[in-house]
Amino acid sequence: QGTRDHAPAQAALRERLLSAVVSCFKRHGAAAIDTPVLELRETLVGKYGEGAKLIYELKDQGGELLALRYDLTVPFARYLAMNKITKMKRYHVAKVYRRDNPATTRGRYREFYQCDFDIAGQFDPMIPDAECLKIVHEILSDLQLGDFVIKVNDRRILNGVFAVCGVPESQFIPACCTVDKLDKVPWEEVRSEMVGEKGLSPEAADRIGEYVQLHGGLDLIEQLLQDPKLSQNKVAKEGLGDMKLLFEYLSLFGITGKISFDLSLARGLDYYTGVIFEAVLLQQDNEHLEEPLSVGSVAGGGRYDGLVGMFDAKGRKVPCVGVSIGIERIFSILEQRLEASGEKLRTTETQVLVATPQKHLLAARMKLISELWDAGIKAEMLYKKDPKLLKQLQYCEDTGIPLAVIVGEQELADGVVKLRDVATRKEVRM
Amino acid sequence: QGTRDHAPAQAALRERLLSAVVSCFKRHGAAAIDTPVLELRETLVGKYGEGAKLIYELKDQGGELLALRYDLTVPFARYLAMNKITKMKRYHVAKVYRRDNPATTRGRYREFYQCDFDIAGQFDPMIPDAECLKIVHEILSDLQLGDFVIKVNDRRILNGVFAVCGVPESQFIPACCTVDKLDKVPWEEVRSEMVGEKGLSPEAADRIGEYVQLHGGLDLIEQLLQDPKLSQNKVAKEGLGDMKLLFEYLSLFGITGKISFDLSLARGLDYYTGVIFEAVLLQQDNEHLEEPLSVGSVAGGGRYDGLVGMFDAKGRKVPCVGVSIGIERIFSILEQRLEASGEKLRTTETQVLVATPQKHLLAARMKLISELWDAGIKAEMLYKKDPKLLKQLQYCEDTGIPLAVIVGEQELADGVVKLRDVATRKEVRM
Repeated sequence: QGTRDHAPAQAALRERLLSAVVSCFKRHGAAAIDTPVLELRETLVGKYGEGAKLIYELKDQGGELLALRYDLTVPFARYLAMNKITKMKRYHVAKVYRRDNPATTRGRYREFYQCDFDIAGQFDPMIPDAECLKIVHEILSDLQLGDFVIKVNDRRILNGVFAVCGVPESQFIPACCTVDKLDKVPWEEVRSEMVGEKGLSPEAADRIGEYVQLHGGLDLIEQLLQDPKLSQNKVAKEGLGDMKLLFEYLSLFGITGKISFDLSLARGLDYYTGVIFEAVLLQQDNEHLEEPLSVGSVAGGGRYDGLVGMFDAKGRKVPCVGVSIGIERIFSILEQRLEASGEKLRTTETQVLVATPQKHLLAARMKLISELWDAGIKAEMLYKKDPKLLKQLQYCEDTGIPLAVIVGEQELADGVVKLRDVATRKEVRM
Repeated sequence: QGTRDHAPAQAALRERLLSAVVSCFKRHGAAAIDTPVLELRETLVGKYGEGAKLIYELKDQGGELLALRYDLTVPFARYLAMNKITKMKRYHVAKVYRRDNPATTRGRYREFYQCDFDIAGQFDPMIPDAECLKIVHEILSDLQLGDFVIKVNDRRILNGVFAVCGVPESQFIPACCTVDKLDKVPWEEVRSEMVGEKGLSPEAADRIGEYVQLHGGLDLIEQLLQDPKLSQNKVAKEGLGDMKLLFEYLSLFGITGKISFDLSLARGLDYYTGVIFEAVLLQQDNEHLEEPLSVGSVAGGGRYDGLVGMFDAKGRKVPCVGVSIGIERIFSILEQRLEASGEKLRTTETQVLVATPQKHLLAARMKLISELWDAGIKAEMLYKKDPKLLKQLQYCEDTGIPLAVIVGEQELADGVVKLRDVATRKEVRM
């Protein structure tokens, strides 16, 4: 349940998609690492907040207690700490596992790929953070998924908001999780969860509501920097200062047009400590609506400066910022688009079919194809002793093989082959 | 235990290795498929003989009972049956899981990659089988692993041998498993396991011993086809006839020099029904020995005509033959070789570092690098506001970046950049 096989057409589409993403990561100088699908259960515990109940655990068959990785970020942090690495730019494309309710038409599976790019290390503020946003911008533009917006916020700004609205610090993370639902449900529902389930006072909730419904650009940052309450809060001020710097860098990268500073963005994971962001595609075909509808998140990430320290015996921190591309949702969109277009993706790369027009020529075919393979040419032949020429050419058409090399008795005698262009039916002897 | 992280250097080596293998599979016209790491437990049960105890099972957290895949062959057969596919040439490169005793220096892990190529479908005999052997030959030659031999046998020949030696049919599979150990232990030990554990008569064991210690080429096939007992056995005769045909095809492919018909080859898995094979590397540095020592299997496979039928409600069979490349052992060899050579593999592909020689030029660097990224050029910069030029050039040398583009105040004023070749220190303005 919640998993799927990839047939050749899907595997080919996925290869194309992953290769576009990996190209971008490599363009930004990232190195690849790989970690096991299995992690010690204790490595994953306490890192995911409400997500923890979705972790797949292995049966105790003796030995260590294991679980399937839930994301690629925690294994990365574990890797850095274990190897005492304090500086690294890496990407990792691999499957992760969550016992979630599958919604397969929207691309939500229990086994799915994540494509992560992260920068670990102590650097000057906001430079790596800005690069992560540039990467999201490049990938979503490359893939031509239509219009999108990248929402940006900072956990420090949110925490500052909670503080000045009178929320006790122990309630920051639950409050965060509740705010995070604002992209799916209206404020009234979020408010009632805050008051009902999370036990905030109605006044605090109302004050939070005034902040978290704000979104804008540099002007909003300036406005909040002047806000009489927020400007008195140390962490909020730090967050807003960094947000201003981030916007400056994004403007040098030429991408502020797609960035929205959005105070409702909270992100569900416990480990974020600074900038957070999430890219959403905007619905194209609702031109009568005033604001385009968002069709869901296709990338997300943020800064997590404390996670590596949780795996270090002495608690040494390594600041990190990273982005994860939501490849499954993008895959669903491209798959539906491909289906609608009727275009047929080739599933093989074969350049030439080795064919014979008469019987008793299997040996000639096998000798020739062997030469082609040894010369690095992608070649196939039918696995029949005496196939009809028509069947062989039909196979080329069915599978998109552009050329057929034909060896008949005459060609054998003359020491030549006929090379046929399958589409135009033109033939040359060579 | 028995798993490992891949650091960037290892990940780069693995990418190089996997890409050589996948190139070969694509050269032979295979399409990719992908199946989940998780399979229903019942899918894996009863397919692996003695291997079954090594299957990783998931904890029962409600819902289906799941296990981690043990190989890629059973999921492939399940995929074919589920989708009623009767003809397919596919490759699959992915991780599989076995709760085995790890021997990590020899490349034996609990999580490891398999690289499988399989041909499913009803075809003329031995043509796909010969292609599988050609693929093994191409890959091992491409990777320059040194001398190797591909041992070939046929389960029908082995079954014929057991039958004419007086073994009851119910004992064929256990006898097979025992014979399979002949590459690791001497005949006397195998014999005593047959008599002691498997309950064969000493006479039967001795008669088996006469056959399974034979190895050779076409002449041995001819000899056994004349063998008074074997030639009377229907399955053995079929197997020997096909083996002769296989050798004919392998000779057209020009690879019989590396092929050994070896009656001791049995392969541990239950599902093989016809041709089986295994490639072993030969030790190079023991020239004083008469016969080169084998350093272990690096590829294996065979024909399994009954496996797909086990997943079909009506038992409809789809004949299959395939090969699995033992990538972990090959990886260990290449890793050790790389270490010994002192060669440093680049872990990134960055073409150019964007550098500045004075302070207050971060904005210029960010603008320029953004242009380069948008033009598809792999570029990096240091995440510092005012890095020293020496540090920037040092970074190029450390990570193998061949070029630096330098923008100083003068260049900005002139509207040019300096392009520096890091190795030769030559610079051009452009």
